[in-house]
Amino acid sequence: MIRILHIFVILVIGALAPATQAAAEPLPSWRDGPAKEAILGFVRTATAKGKPDYLAPEERIAVFDNDGTLWAEKPVYVQVFFALDQAKELARRDPKFASTPALKAAAAGDFKALAATGREGLAEVVAATHSGMTVEDFEAAVRTWIGKARNPEKNMRFTEMVYQPMLELLDYLRANDFKTYIVSGGGVDFMRAFTKELYGVPPELVIGSMGEARFEIVDGKPQIMKDSGILFINDGPGKPLAIVRQIGRRPVFVAGNSDGDLQMLQWGTAGAAPRLGIIIHHTDAAREWAYDRDSPVGRLDKALDLSAEDGWMVVDMAKDWKQIFPNAE
Amino acid sequence: MIRILHIFVILVIGALAPATQAAAEPLPSWRDGPAKEAILGFVRTATAKGKPDYLAPEERIAVFDNDGTLWAEKPVYVQVFFALDQAKELARRDPKFASTPALKAAAAGDFKALAATGREGLAEVVAATHSGMTVEDFEAAVRTWIGKARNPEKNMRFTEMVYQPMLELLDYLRANDFKTYIVSGGGVDFMRAFTKELYGVPPELVIGSMGEARFEIVDGKPQIMKDSGILFINDGPGKPLAIVRQIGRRPVFVAGNSDGDLQMLQWGTAGAAPRLGIIIHHTDAAREWAYDRDSPVGRLDKALDLSAEDGWMVVDMAKDWKQIFPNAE
Repeated sequence: MIRILHIFVILVIGALAPATQAAAEPLPSWRDGPAKEAILGFVRTATAKGKPDYLAPEERIAVFDNDGTLWAEKPVYVQVFFALDQAKELARRDPKFASTPALKAAAAGDFKALAATGREGLAEVVAATHSGMTVEDFEAAVRTWIGKARNPEKNMRFTEMVYQPMLELLDYLRANDFKTYIVSGGGVDFMRAFTKELYGVPPELVIGSMGEARFEIVDGKPQIMKDSGILFINDGPGKPLAIVRQIGRRPVFVAGNSDGDLQMLQWGTAGAAPRLGIIIHHTDAAREWAYDRDSPVGRLDKALDLSAEDGWMVVDMAKDWKQIFPNAE
Repeated sequence: MIRILHIFVILVIGALAPATQAAAEPLPSWRDGPAKEAILGFVRTATAKGKPDYLAPEERIAVFDNDGTLWAEKPVYVQVFFALDQAKELARRDPKFASTPALKAAAAGDFKALAATGREGLAEVVAATHSGMTVEDFEAAVRTWIGKARNPEKNMRFTEMVYQPMLELLDYLRANDFKTYIVSGGGVDFMRAFTKELYGVPPELVIGSMGEARFEIVDGKPQIMKDSGILFINDGPGKPLAIVRQIGRRPVFVAGNSDGDLQMLQWGTAGAAPRLGIIIHHTDAAREWAYDRDSPVGRLDKALDLSAEDGWMVVDMAKDWKQIFPNAE
């Protein structure tokens, strides 16, 4: 009897030990300080059963911007590099592809000439490289590309340029029964090609910009074809709208890094119940990049001004993060 | 020792018994026959671990139309009754509301006069009764209304006119780790007011038609206001598109009842892996309504013609269902 009890105790302790260890040190890449404290305190409050601020698991909705919040966005968004490489590839297969100044510049990898064509030129390149195929074929193309493409400034794979502290934050929230959504200006079909593997976020929890598409039956096979028109840009005030449309609940945790996340931060952190908004502030020129108000990519200006008033926690990458990328020393 | 083992055995059997009992008799309101067999066979195949047709839980996506598939849609869609009652209420509060022939007819409950204004008239009534308020206020109005509104032909509450066999099917699929989505032509904000309570389907698993909306800050309070324009009609070829946009996975189980579900059936049942499409055929004039090819509401014509060829199981409500509504004898 004693012996059985003894074995029982060992088994129970064995089963509990990993959980206890994990709980003892969440967010290991976050330095002790106000940002880490705010996150730990928010989760503690939201999950304290029987307390007035307890949130039922179905209310634990966390939304994360992607570019600049979960992975690097400099010198330009990863999806732009994809569009340029695709343009090159499509022009190689069909010389008639490079039929306009913008497509020609993109196919030649000539950034200066492409920049001269303005926003319209870039939109044209994105449209031409993101349409005329099924969603499945497009995602396969993204998956192939992202398996080898590299950031030209850091010479690292884009997939190596995710933020280790944010991966830990995603895991930590999920371990506490939060649903972690990505709500990004990036194309939804583009992101779904890698979000599960990279962040543990399955396709149905990814909300993004959307192109036009159509249902059609080709040779008896029903499929969804990507068209070149833009249906919805998931940025600024579009983010809370998209969240209402797709989730139908107000998030209680919001992470962003730019003015494109302003309305999502405002909407997610207003009202009763424990709520937390965090802003990733790019302050680390040595380990990543330092930019905010004057950056054309990831411009952070108005949201930074409002952060004190609205109680958003500004995360200082240089001070608050021990480590930025997973494979860095 | 023997005694401890004995207690252990009792505990284990106690823990397992409910699951065994539930598995012994799923779908009690379905009569034995090809429809019930097709459903049981599909779930058995999809969940048979180690077999070639096994589906991982994340692939177990089931989509259900709502009107005519999960609840009754005669004499017209429930949401139309809501729009008419709202028009009456809004006109009572503000006589200037009934400013057009369609709104006047709706406010007076004059179906004949409303019908004379055509589709445009009905669209005008829906727009006027579904806008100018926050999403939360709109959902609260729907919840209040649906708690007491009744079907004029059957004098039953609309919430009592859900199909008992379909409630059992939803439960059965969920018990087998399927995610059950609603994909309906009904307004998404309208449906979310009751889908959790009525069907056990939370807001994030409801996909529907969508009106325009805008983010705004009123007296420092960020909110989402419903506008009167229509953004997206979730019907016909729109259904597979909406599924791709919101779920990002192809469903393996599709339930519908009309030609509005045709493309969703085609797309969801094409390709490898175990897949099942079912069509609820309204054949029971005594217990519900009997209609198909000539009905303006829930017209089932082309999908019925294609059902044999495409292998969709046509559920004969009169023959296949022991019981239709939960409270009927």
